[in-house]
Amino acid sequence: MNTVYGMKASGNCYKLQLLLEQLGQPYRWIETDSTTGETRTPEFLAKNPNGKVPLLELEDGRRLPESNAILCFLAEGSRFLPDDRWQRAQVLQWLFFEQYSHEPYIAVARFIAKWLPADHPRQADLPKLRERGYQALGVMEKQLARTDFLVESGYTIADIALYAYTHEAHVGGFDLDAYPAIRAWLARVEVQPGFVPQSY
Amino acid sequence: MNTVYGMKASGNCYKLQLLLEQLGQPYRWIETDSTTGETRTPEFLAKNPNGKVPLLELEDGRRLPESNAILCFLAEGSRFLPDDRWQRAQVLQWLFFEQYSHEPYIAVARFIAKWLPADHPRQADLPKLRERGYQALGVMEKQLARTDFLVESGYTIADIALYAYTHEAHVGGFDLDAYPAIRAWLARVEVQPGFVPQSY
Repeated sequence: MNTVYGMKASGNCYKLQLLLEQLGQPYRWIETDSTTGETRTPEFLAKNPNGKVPLLELEDGRRLPESNAILCFLAEGSRFLPDDRWQRAQVLQWLFFEQYSHEPYIAVARFIAKWLPADHPRQADLPKLRERGYQALGVMEKQLARTDFLVESGYTIADIALYAYTHEAHVGGFDLDAYPAIRAWLARVEVQPGFVPQSY
Repeated sequence: MNTVYGMKASGNCYKLQLLLEQLGQPYRWIETDSTTGETRTPEFLAKNPNGKVPLLELEDGRRLPESNAILCFLAEGSRFLPDDRWQRAQVLQWLFFEQYSHEPYIAVARFIAKWLPADHPRQADLPKLRERGYQALGVMEKQLARTDFLVESGYTIADIALYAYTHEAHVGGFDLDAYPAIRAWLARVEVQPGFVPQSY
């Protein structure tokens, strides 16, 4: 059985929970709190030198970090990752978009707004984070106005990866009123077979 | 023939130039300067709504953004992207590491140090960028002390992606003296068949 070192409150970790549930694959979850230093202990750094969760550990001890690389690995051969070379490339471009142009703004705004005290200096970052986050939402809206899911072939790990923080964008102060295609897509993701909500 | 919209000075764009040369695939390069707004024109945004280079355009007009997704697409079926599922997962984890934990620090420090005036307010970001950039270099050093290339199977697009900005880390003020395995790896990359240096 696979083991996931993860933190329930992290969208990056929730991605794996959602995919594993939808694949119907049993797994062990070891809650690992990065906010209290549990990903920076010598023991954890020996498992992942980059000191981050999620981390996948196979039964034979091999380990894989990076949420979106883990999604690709687990989804291989399933309906969540198309075989077609062009469709796969589309999935990958959304996964890289998520990590570079979406997560650093939408996830970080959520973290600051929800977990840091109101007088914390990082609260000053919020306007810039929101500006960039809205740009990312604009790119998604344009795509989702044309196709039901991010990649034309249907629901894939690209949707899982982008659902993870978009469904909590409001926590970081993002207003989705002007993004009807995103709102409809969130609802479509939530009725996929095996869907489980994030709970923490 | 494929077309690349790219900027020679950008490491993200250089990745594609390096892989295409090593694949021996002819391509057309359309120099597109993001620093003068060429990636934000209505014409370019119609091609890539995220307003970034590189962008790959196939002969039939289909387009693919995101440097590392393009690397995967182009390298499919070649020796630069292993077929083995576990080795592929390793390649992908380094590609996501590059975009999330390396490029935002090492490429951005290079940009600020090289292109922004000495009295620009963003110069104040450099100490934090260097701290995070050294963390990323530490993760690479640990791997490269054990294996000749980032993935055990040999030279792959993971090396291309991480070479792109690591070879210019010094421009952003990073000192590689304490990273002998990285320095040896840079030299190994530079003698790969078909290697071309970045020139701009």
